[in-house]
Amino acid sequence: MTAKTMEELVSLCKRRGFIFQSNDIYGGIKGLYDYGPMGVELKNNLKQSWWKSMIYERDDIEGLDSTILTSPEVLKHSGHEDTFSDPLVDCKACKSRWRADQLERNSCPNCKSKDLTEPRPFNLMFKTSIGPVDDGSAFAYLRPETAQNIFTNFKNVLTSTNRSVPFGIAQIGKSFRNEITPRNFIFRVREFEQMELEFFVEPGSDEDWHKYWINSRQKWWVNQGIDKNNLQLINVEEDELSHYSKATLDIMYKFPHGLEELEGIANRTDFDLGSHTKNQNEFNISAKVMKNDKSTTKLAVHNLESNKWFIPYVIEPSAGVDRGILAILNEAYKEELLTEKNKRIVLALKPHLSPIKAAVIPLKKNNKDLVNQAKKIKDNLQKLGLGRVVLENSGNIGKSYRRHDEIGTPICITVDFETLEKQTVTVRDRDTMQQETVNLEQLQNYYSKYFE
Amino acid sequence: MTAKTMEELVSLCKRRGFIFQSNDIYGGIKGLYDYGPMGVELKNNLKQSWWKSMIYERDDIEGLDSTILTSPEVLKHSGHEDTFSDPLVDCKACKSRWRADQLERNSCPNCKSKDLTEPRPFNLMFKTSIGPVDDGSAFAYLRPETAQNIFTNFKNVLTSTNRSVPFGIAQIGKSFRNEITPRNFIFRVREFEQMELEFFVEPGSDEDWHKYWINSRQKWWVNQGIDKNNLQLINVEEDELSHYSKATLDIMYKFPHGLEELEGIANRTDFDLGSHTKNQNEFNISAKVMKNDKSTTKLAVHNLESNKWFIPYVIEPSAGVDRGILAILNEAYKEELLTEKNKRIVLALKPHLSPIKAAVIPLKKNNKDLVNQAKKIKDNLQKLGLGRVVLENSGNIGKSYRRHDEIGTPICITVDFETLEKQTVTVRDRDTMQQETVNLEQLQNYYSKYFE
Repeated sequence: MTAKTMEELVSLCKRRGFIFQSNDIYGGIKGLYDYGPMGVELKNNLKQSWWKSMIYERDDIEGLDSTILTSPEVLKHSGHEDTFSDPLVDCKACKSRWRADQLERNSCPNCKSKDLTEPRPFNLMFKTSIGPVDDGSAFAYLRPETAQNIFTNFKNVLTSTNRSVPFGIAQIGKSFRNEITPRNFIFRVREFEQMELEFFVEPGSDEDWHKYWINSRQKWWVNQGIDKNNLQLINVEEDELSHYSKATLDIMYKFPHGLEELEGIANRTDFDLGSHTKNQNEFNISAKVMKNDKSTTKLAVHNLESNKWFIPYVIEPSAGVDRGILAILNEAYKEELLTEKNKRIVLALKPHLSPIKAAVIPLKKNNKDLVNQAKKIKDNLQKLGLGRVVLENSGNIGKSYRRHDEIGTPICITVDFETLEKQTVTVRDRDTMQQETVNLEQLQNYYSKYFE
Repeated sequence: MTAKTMEELVSLCKRRGFIFQSNDIYGGIKGLYDYGPMGVELKNNLKQSWWKSMIYERDDIEGLDSTILTSPEVLKHSGHEDTFSDPLVDCKACKSRWRADQLERNSCPNCKSKDLTEPRPFNLMFKTSIGPVDDGSAFAYLRPETAQNIFTNFKNVLTSTNRSVPFGIAQIGKSFRNEITPRNFIFRVREFEQMELEFFVEPGSDEDWHKYWINSRQKWWVNQGIDKNNLQLINVEEDELSHYSKATLDIMYKFPHGLEELEGIANRTDFDLGSHTKNQNEFNISAKVMKNDKSTTKLAVHNLESNKWFIPYVIEPSAGVDRGILAILNEAYKEELLTEKNKRIVLALKPHLSPIKAAVIPLKKNNKDLVNQAKKIKDNLQKLGLGRVVLENSGNIGKSYRRHDEIGTPICITVDFETLEKQTVTVRDRDTMQQETVNLEQLQNYYSKYFE
């Protein structure tokens, strides 16, 4: 069972410190959200899970962390300056501006006038002046995707790590799009985080690798707690493909507001490296690229057998972190009837994603012996390095259980007078609500096993 | 021994994939750097070490991850719109613009004219239009510090986590400053990362907490491998204090280019919460704050004993991630004479910061048995979750040792024919270069112990 409505999720997120509207004491800015104490842990856990699966558990991918501010040359040659836009219409009567597809029967939603301009492309990239002179001569974009800086660093990474194709470069980081109509909570926002892999392969092997990554990425989402039945694979129609793509497969998820893209896996061919390379004529570039006389570097690799230099193809699995968080929260959200009148909300997160792994709760708030013992237990479990453990010193066990159910803490450990006398604690399981007595001696072992 | 010159560090960083100039295939943009495969791991390890020490190992701090795009209202009331500036001078002859303190004998460094304007303040914040209309009516700043969004979320965090003072909110993230003259590699850049803690306390206890955090932060840097003798504590003179500060202690470090700030620990008093709060007149705000009739929220806490609401004081330890990386690389960099003609460069990083924890090296590149065995060992060590382990399949042991010395890998594990026959591997220590034979059975244990 998933959340019934987006409102339920938004409410839980605010109440329990997952996600807040950004700048909200000043009325907020549309399409910007902050991650609170629970949200930042959940997000970090999700990013870490991706990073592990991409870099640590494989032998063919390197990481990168590049700047957000990006040179206009990069985004000119990538095609973003020309094509990364939405069609906008101006109302000549009241001077308001609208996305063409949002007009009500060709009249202005504000003043109802029908005196509108033709749709004109509006570029979605944020721009900012850089350097001391603010006359438009020097500016940078906030990157609209993390991918481009991977391409511009292709040679740097290749050379410093002695790689040869197939190999990949992975990056997690913020991207920015000046969405006209941000909407659906953290689904469509103006500042968001991406997890992008650019996987470089020999031309000709690209279609096999594309299939490989579609399969691999789907499995990964299931491992993060997404029910396979709520995922749907959709091949993007040829006339809807981005300018760089030979084929794109979208992994769609049943969000509370409808079926929408969670991750796209594109075959970008040799478009990007070909666009950014020096001496384009030396290579047999298959994609239609813009002429480049600014690049200082050949973005090619050497085939030892044929003794030829070539520009690799790229397969790109590109996932949205915030969309991932929304999907995972939606999947984990459960309302359970405990008795006829009594219900609980529980976030049945996969333990590796839970913001807090265990809460240690002294039975009484002001009892020094209990609190000290609880603190000792917390410190010992924390040292195991499996994630955040908290001392929950509220003095109210029932309230603590409710809180930790709602933030998805897998286990609660209660320290009571039995602990002082008999060296045992009570461990409560989030999902079954079963309680069992565990010897202090065995607690570390019990805990480690739980998270294996 | 530290690096002799900045050039040595820059060279190592590029050669071994720590740090590259951003957008460099198009000539780069001044003051922007990308972290390569080794740099991103080092940076993540440093950030994680800070996060652990702030949030996981304590019981009084919560985390946050807020947006970079920030409402002008926030940065107006924080004082940044008015005071966050450098004095600039225009040359009336050639129209170039300069920082007042960089003029050569009051003449333009470009055309030598003495016909210059008076110095005028130039705001260092990056600005960008937001929303569909680009007429300046709607804009946001790229935050110049992560701190402000902590203050605006004060009530959100307090309420969702049931905290009372003293408690803190910690955040790691990017900040942006349009430096006129970025310089000294990653020391003064336009896009950088900060690790900031805002620790909220009762007024009156602020000076003790200030001392506490000065002491605590100094220890932390020493634990990251900084020699205490290269640190210097300097009290900022009263006439040089920021507009919000009652007292600031700078932790200075002997960088290759000179003694400069690594971290500042400021007593921000009740300036920030007082500036951003609704109904300022209800509280006895001690700082000189701008009148605020825009905020919707009271940023105060309740004292149960006196039954009064008050605005907490704030102690802020604010550290630069990139400066930290530079200091740590500088400390770790060593050139050692092995024989009269033979030297090595080694990065003696603390193991918890090393980008790669262990390299598993098969003796021969093309021997399947050796490579498979090495892969198995790599996977088993990787599963222990202590950081990145790599399979180093270069087929050249000497070259592999050199590379891993230079990127600071604590141990190299060589898989040879003895491994297949006798189930032993050779383990080489980065610092001592000693090699010892370890039984495969004991390897996991050996490895875990090393990183304890």
